[in-house]
Amino acid sequence: MVILKVAARSNPNSVSGAIAGVLEEHGVVELHAIGAGAVNQTVKAIAIARRLVEKEGSPSIKVIPGFIELKIDGERKTGIRFIVER
Amino acid sequence: MVILKVAARSNPNSVSGAIAGVLEEHGVVELHAIGAGAVNQTVKAIAIARRLVEKEGSPSIKVIPGFIELKIDGERKTGIRFIVER
Repeated sequence: MVILKVAARSNPNSVSGAIAGVLEEHGVVELHAIGAGAVNQTVKAIAIARRLVEKEGSPSIKVIPGFIELKIDGERKTGIRFIVER
Repeated sequence: MVILKVAARSNPNSVSGAIAGVLEEHGVVELHAIGAGAVNQTVKAIAIARRLVEKEGSPSIKVIPGFIELKIDGERKTGIRFIVER
């Protein structure tokens, strides 16, 4: 499983390209985001990726959001994990 | 189509109950969010709703995020629309 970590300062267009690329190759990709800004960028990136993937004639993508516990600098934080499948 | 408008100050637990309820009755629900805080609360609510719906033995829910143009107080804003299906 390829994991893309998205930050509040990530560019949704760049992330959407990565999503489309991994979906193309593996059919599934996982995204991790911590904090409202990062979650927002992730959702925008998925929305843009939908357009990219649907342009190529594939069926629409499916998103499953859930919670995830991550360790950042030794500190436990609750983030959001998105599993994106096509 | 039932539309739930989610704000940055919405309580994800309350919204998740509403999502589960509408899914139970209609099988599909649409959520609108404007801004990073509102998008974050919406994603959390969907993640919680997954647990509620899956507890009831239904198949896992499917989320399709996209962009939407909304008019708020006469001003055009771009928000995120989530279509949630079970």
